Parts: sequence; C-alpha cells; structure tokens
Amino acid sequence: MGRWQPDARGRLEKAAMELYGERGFDQTTVAEIAERAGLTERTFFRHFADKREVLFAGSEHMKQFLETTLAELPAGLSPIDATGEAFAAAGALMQQRRDLSLQRQQIIIANPDLQERELIKLAAWTVALTRVLRERGVADPAAGLAAQAGTAVFRTAFEAWITEPGDADLPQLVRQSLEQLKDVTAGR
Amino acid sequence: MGRWQPDARGRLEKAAMELYGERGFDQTTVAEIAERAGLTERTFFRHFADKREVLFAGSEHMKQFLETTLAELPAGLSPIDATGEAFAAAGALMQQRRDLSLQRQQIIIANPDLQERELIKLAAWTVALTRVLRERGVADPAAGLAAQAGTAVFRTAFEAWITEPGDADLPQLVRQSLEQLKDVTAGR
Repeated sequence: MGRWQPDARGRLEKAAMELYGERGFDQTTVAEIAERAGLTERTFFRHFADKREVLFAGSEHMKQFLETTLAELPAGLSPIDATGEAFAAAGALMQQRRDLSLQRQQIIIANPDLQERELIKLAAWTVALTRVLRERGVADPAAGLAAQAGTAVFRTAFEAWITEPGDADLPQLVRQSLEQLKDVTAGR
Repeated sequence: MGRWQPDARGRLEKAAMELYGERGFDQTTVAEIAERAGLTERTFFRHFADKREVLFAGSEHMKQFLETTLAELPAGLSPIDATGEAFAAAGALMQQRRDLSLQRQQIIIANPDLQERELIKLAAWTVALTRVLRERGVADPAAGLAAQAGTAVFRTAFEAWITEPGDADLPQLVRQSLEQLKDVTAGR
C-alpha cells in the first residue's frame, strides 16, 4: 500500500464514529481508530489534531458556509428571514449526511464535555452571523438578536429532525421553527 | 480571632475579584486570595470548591431565582412575556451589585475558558426555564423557543447594561430588548 490512502479522512471518520458509538468517546484511543480504519496513527494526525476534532471539524466548514450564504442572500430579506434561510441552506447540506449527524448526536449526548463543545460551536456560529448581519447593514442590537434567535430556531429544528423517525426534511423544519418563533414572540 | 469569621465569604469574593482583575484569573492562587482576605486556605475551601467557583457560585442561585419567579408569574402572561419578566426580576437583583457584575464581566472577557463556562451557565438557565414553561402548560417547541429567545434578550440587555456608562436600568433594558426582539421577528 502506497503512502497515498484513498479517502483516508473518510475512513478515519467512519472508524472513529463506530468506535465512539460502541465504546464511548473517552474509552476510544487514536491508535484504535487508526487500526479500525486500516491506517497508521501518523495518518490520523495528518487529518485531525485529536480525536475530538473528528466530531467538530465540520463545524468550522459549516460556519463558513453559513457566513457565505447569509452574505449572498437578497438584500430585501429581513434579518430574521435571511438568518432562517441561511440555516435552511445549512440544513440541506446536513440532510445529505443524516446518518452521520444522528450518530454524531448520540455520541455528543452521552458526553458532557462534548455537549459543552457543541454549545461553544453554536456560540461561534452566532458571533459569525451577527457580524455578517452587521455587514448587511443591520444595526445593533437587532443583528445580535436575529443571529441568536436564528440559532435557537436551528437548534429546535435540528432536535426535531434528529429525534423524528423517517425522513423529515431539515430545511422545512427550520422554516417551520422560524414560524413557531414568530408565533411565540407575537404572543400567539 | 476565633474560628468564626464575620462575612468570610464576602471577603474572599472581594479579594478574589481584586486579584483576578489585577493579575488575571490564571495567575491567581487560592493561597493568595486567602491571604488578601486575611483568612486561611482552609476557610476558602469551606466556601468555594475552587477559584472558578467564586465567579460562578451566584449562577446556580440565579437559576433557582429565575425558576421560582417564572413559576409564580400570572398564568395569563404569554410564554415570551413571562420569560422576559423573570429576566427583568433577575436584572433587578443584579442591579443591586452592579460593580461586582462589571468586575466579573471584565475577568470573564479576558479568559476563553471562563467565557465557555459562562455559555454553559446560560445554557443551564435556558434548560431550567424550558422546564418551568412546560410546567406552566406551554407545549413544545414553543417552551424551548421562548426560553432561548428570552435568554437572548437577557444577554443583549446585560451587554448594554455592562458597557453603558452611568446608571442604566437593567430591568428596563430587558423589557426594551424584548420589544426589539419582537420587532426583529416581526420583520420590522
């Protein structure tokens, strides 16, 4: 086998997810992940800084996707609708890998440290979206409120998507959660 | 001096805040806090589990205050208005110790680990408020959305209160932020 490993990253991710699910995150070592993937530890560390990054490497990518999407949405959209649409687009991406999201979520729910990391991830998304809303000309505090409310909408939709059996549509759940938030804040 | 120390807890808190502000949180030891307060390390550990708890001991108390306040508000209030009122009441409490809040905030802003701990504190408040809203008869996902939106309102108001010079009124800022959120979600 040559040095170049076809889809080494994907194989490491798959092996890590399986092992975290079977043994728990804390009980899994990088050596075991590499072994299950048929690769070396060295290859693991070429792709991931540590075993936690396997679960969170996608978050930075998703943050950038949210930023770019929000920046490019029509200027006429209200801040909350624009934020909702950015999350709906992110949801469409996640939908392509529903099994992975489900597996990941179960691992995170089982581990308080990972839950904290997940909160920090969401907070980083909110900060990024607030900045883009300001760039879209939204004043403070509306920018921060829209970004936080949008993140709350996404969390609510994501939880419904993960817990519902079958093929719920995440972008649609995001739009539905946004309508529910509008009802809640209108006192309906 | 006898074993009983008048207001040992308050003196330790004051000494810790001063030292965290002067030297930074990481550079301060429990021994130094105890010395500044004129007390022993043993006394410190009778009041706080560690030096981080000095900054977060009030959070658990505040969470319980929010829960009790929300549970006792009139049944006729909408979920979002009830949540807003609970945070306004919490704001009135914090207002009594504005200098401490300000000092605490500066310490937290200077330290990423403490910022993470602060996020976790807010998430715990949101979970608690969601539960109380359900007990008030609010269905899902409205309960979670109202609790998250209320927490966003409080964060926004708190930041304005901390950064504004002079004597801004925190309960009033909370009510004002809630109106701003209602405008944002109504697309105004």
